[in-house]
Amino acid sequence: MSTTNGSASERTIYLGAFAHCTSQQEVEICEAGAIGVDLDGKIAFIERDIRDIPSYQLRERKDGWEKAKVVQIQDQGFFFPGFIESSFTDLEKARRIYARVVNRTLSHGTTTACYYATVHVEATNLLSDICLSKGQRAFVGRVCMDQLSPDYYRDESAESAIEATEACIAHVAKIDPKHHFITPIITPRFAPSCSEACLSALGKLAHKTGLPIQTHISENKSEIQLVAEMFPNNSSYTDVYDKAGLLNSKTILAHAVHLSPEERATIRSRDAKISHCPASNTALTSGAAPVRTLLDEGLTVGLGTDVSGGYSPSILEEARQAVLVSRHVAMADGDAAKLSTEEALWLATRGGAKVVGLENRVGGFEVGMDWDAQMISLDVVSEDGEMDDADTKGPVDVFMWESWPDRLNKWFYGGDDRNTAAVWIKGRLVHTTHKYKD
Amino acid sequence: MSTTNGSASERTIYLGAFAHCTSQQEVEICEAGAIGVDLDGKIAFIERDIRDIPSYQLRERKDGWEKAKVVQIQDQGFFFPGFIESSFTDLEKARRIYARVVNRTLSHGTTTACYYATVHVEATNLLSDICLSKGQRAFVGRVCMDQLSPDYYRDESAESAIEATEACIAHVAKIDPKHHFITPIITPRFAPSCSEACLSALGKLAHKTGLPIQTHISENKSEIQLVAEMFPNNSSYTDVYDKAGLLNSKTILAHAVHLSPEERATIRSRDAKISHCPASNTALTSGAAPVRTLLDEGLTVGLGTDVSGGYSPSILEEARQAVLVSRHVAMADGDAAKLSTEEALWLATRGGAKVVGLENRVGGFEVGMDWDAQMISLDVVSEDGEMDDADTKGPVDVFMWESWPDRLNKWFYGGDDRNTAAVWIKGRLVHTTHKYKD
Repeated sequence: MSTTNGSASERTIYLGAFAHCTSQQEVEICEAGAIGVDLDGKIAFIERDIRDIPSYQLRERKDGWEKAKVVQIQDQGFFFPGFIESSFTDLEKARRIYARVVNRTLSHGTTTACYYATVHVEATNLLSDICLSKGQRAFVGRVCMDQLSPDYYRDESAESAIEATEACIAHVAKIDPKHHFITPIITPRFAPSCSEACLSALGKLAHKTGLPIQTHISENKSEIQLVAEMFPNNSSYTDVYDKAGLLNSKTILAHAVHLSPEERATIRSRDAKISHCPASNTALTSGAAPVRTLLDEGLTVGLGTDVSGGYSPSILEEARQAVLVSRHVAMADGDAAKLSTEEALWLATRGGAKVVGLENRVGGFEVGMDWDAQMISLDVVSEDGEMDDADTKGPVDVFMWESWPDRLNKWFYGGDDRNTAAVWIKGRLVHTTHKYKD
Repeated sequence: MSTTNGSASERTIYLGAFAHCTSQQEVEICEAGAIGVDLDGKIAFIERDIRDIPSYQLRERKDGWEKAKVVQIQDQGFFFPGFIESSFTDLEKARRIYARVVNRTLSHGTTTACYYATVHVEATNLLSDICLSKGQRAFVGRVCMDQLSPDYYRDESAESAIEATEACIAHVAKIDPKHHFITPIITPRFAPSCSEACLSALGKLAHKTGLPIQTHISENKSEIQLVAEMFPNNSSYTDVYDKAGLLNSKTILAHAVHLSPEERATIRSRDAKISHCPASNTALTSGAAPVRTLLDEGLTVGLGTDVSGGYSPSILEEARQAVLVSRHVAMADGDAAKLSTEEALWLATRGGAKVVGLENRVGGFEVGMDWDAQMISLDVVSEDGEMDDADTKGPVDVFMWESWPDRLNKWFYGGDDRNTAAVWIKGRLVHTTHKYKD
C-alpha cells in the first residue's frame, strides 16, 4: 500500500527512538522516547528516557490517552521529521507524472514540498488536487513566463500571466480555503523569461494576496550576464526582483550560487529565503554555492532540487550533496566551509521549514507542532552476513555495535527510500511500505 | 534468493537489449540482441537486430545451440557488463562483515573487485574463501604496514610482512591454483606506513611472483608532505614506489589526486594504473583528481572506493560521483574536464578491466570474453502513476516515451541495486532478486 489517507482518527503514541535537529549544529537523539499526537495531528507531549516503562503504563499516566493507539519502532530505526523541499523543475502536464512525483517525494519522506508546476492552469490545478488527495503539504506554483520561451509554453502578456495565476489561486481557495495543505505560490519562472511588466504585476499580486513567491536567482554566470543585459536599469539580479516588489520575507530564491555581498545584504534585509540546490548546481557545472557564507551572514537556507528533464525525489540525497559541495568549497576556501551531517539535516528539516514560513509547525518534534514525520527503518545484518532479499532490505547495514550517532550517520550517508518505512503528515499516515506493520 | 552458485551448466542465450562501452566516449545500445554463452562461461556469439526472429529460430540456426537455455530481459531493461572496482578500505576481521561486503558488491553488479583485506593472514584467507564460494572474481590483498600504525594492527618487521603475504599467496595457490577467480595482490598499505625495507621486500616479491600490486598514492596534501619528510632521498611520492620496484604494469594506484606532471610521466612510462576514488576524495576534502588530464596523457584509469569506517558498495554511485567531481574540476579548469555518462561507464567497466589486466576477458560484450554481466531491470510507471510497492520497484521511472539513450541515462543518474535484477560471473548466476525469473 503506497498511500493511506486516513485522518488522525485516534490519539496515537509513537514509541521508540527519535531524532531531530535542535540547533543548526545539533541533533538530539532520544533512544527511548514517546511522542503523543492528538486528533488534530499536533504533538501533545514528548517523553524522553521511558525505556523501562511499558506502553500501557505510559498510556495510563496521561489523562485521556488510556486508549490511545501505539505505533512502535519495530526495528533498529527511529522517528525523524519529514523533509521540506523546494522543487524548481517545471513539471510536464500529465496526471501520470504528477501522481508519480508526489508518490515518489512522499516515499522519500518529503512531507512539505514547493512545486513549480507548469504554465497550464488546469494542469497546475490538477497538481494541487493530487497533493491534497494524497495529503502532502504543498506550495503549488503556476509558472509565469512571457518572454524568451517557445510560443506553446509562454504567457501572451503580463495580464494573462496574472489572470492565469489568479485562476490557480481561486482553485486552491475552493479546494482548501484555509490552506491546511495547499497554498498557491506566485512563481515568475526567473527574471530572463519575464518582462518587467510581468514581474511588477506579480509583485503587486504578491502584495495584495500576501501569498509566498518562488523563483530562481544567480544560478550560473551566463544567466547573470543575460540578466544584466536585459535589465540595464537594475544594479543586480537581486535588484530586478527587489524593484518589482518580489523580494520579501515570503520569497524563496533557488540556487543563489554567485550572489555579490551587496545582493546578499539586500536579500537579508528583506528577509527573503534561499533554497540551495547542490545536485543541480554540480550536474550543470553552475558553481558551488557558498552555503557557509550564507548561513554566517544570517540568511535562511533550505534545500531544493532542480533537475531538468526529470526530478530527484530524495532530499536525503540532496542533503548528502550539500555536504559534498561544501567539501569542494572547502578545497578552495578552507575547512570552515564544510557542512556537517547535522547541518545538512538541519537544512532538510528546520531550515526548509523556515524557508516556507512553517518553522513553528513543522521541521522538528516539539509540543504544539504538527506530526510530520517519517519512520526510519534500519535492518540488522544477519549473523552469517547473508541477505535473503537484498533489494527489499534497504542499503544500510547495522551490525548492532554502532552507537546511535553512528547509526544516524549510516542512514545519512547510505540510506534511501527503502529506509523510510512510513510517513505521516499532520498525524495522517500518507505512505507505508511492507516494513510498516500497523 | 541472494546468491546461486550453479555453474554455467548449459549453453545459454541471453536475449533482449544490451549495452556496453565500445570506446571511451561511446556506448553501444543494441535494442534487440542475442548473446550466446558457452559452457566455459565465454561469449560464443553476438547477434544484433534480431527483433523479428523468434528464439526457437535463433537456436535452430546455431549449430549445437538448439537446446540452449534462453534468459530473456523481462521488462524494459538491458544487459550490461559487470562493474570492476577497487576497494581500498581495510576491512575489519569478521566473517559477518566479509560475507556482507561480498554480497553487497555483487548485488550492485560488481563482478570483479580488488580488496584491501587486513593485516591478519587468517582473515585475509577467509575473504578469499568467501569470494571463491560466492563466485566473485577478486584480487585479495593482505595489507602490509610495519610503521606508523598501532601495535595491534602492524607488521613487526619487513620480514614478517613478507612471510604473512606469502602465507596468503600460498592459501590462494591451494584454493584456486590457476587464479580462475581469486588472485593474491601485493598490498603495501601506503608509503608512510611502510619502511623502505618493507617496500623493497614487497617489490622483490612482486618481481619474483609476477603478482599485481595495489597501494595508495598522493591522496591529500598533508600525506604528500609526510612522504617527503619520511623519504628524503626520493624525489617524489611516485619515486618512493618506483625505487622500491613497486611500479610496473600490474600496479594499481588509488587516488592520484595531486600528482605532478613528472610523476604522471613516470607512472605512464611504467604503465602503472590509476584507481580514481571520487566519493572518498570529496568526502574527505582530499581534492578533485584531474581525470581528464590523466586520460589525455594516456594513463589507464578505473574506479575505486575508499570509505573509512564502512564501504560504499555501489560502483554506479561511484561513476556518478566521478561525473560530479569532474564538474567541480571544470568549474576551475574549463569544460574540457567534464566526464560524460559514457566515459564514467567506461571507467566502471573497460577502464577497470584494464586496471586489473583483464581487458581481454571482461568489461564488455565481445566474442571470446567471459559473460560477466548484470541484468538491468527498469520498471514502467503505471498508467495512473501509483506505486503499489515502491520500495521493491526501484528508483528509476520509465514512462516508455524515453529513447534508449535516455533510458540508459535514467539508470545512470538514478539507478541503484534494485535495478540489478541478476548478476553472472563467467556465465554463473551469482546473484538474483525477486525480479529475476529463471
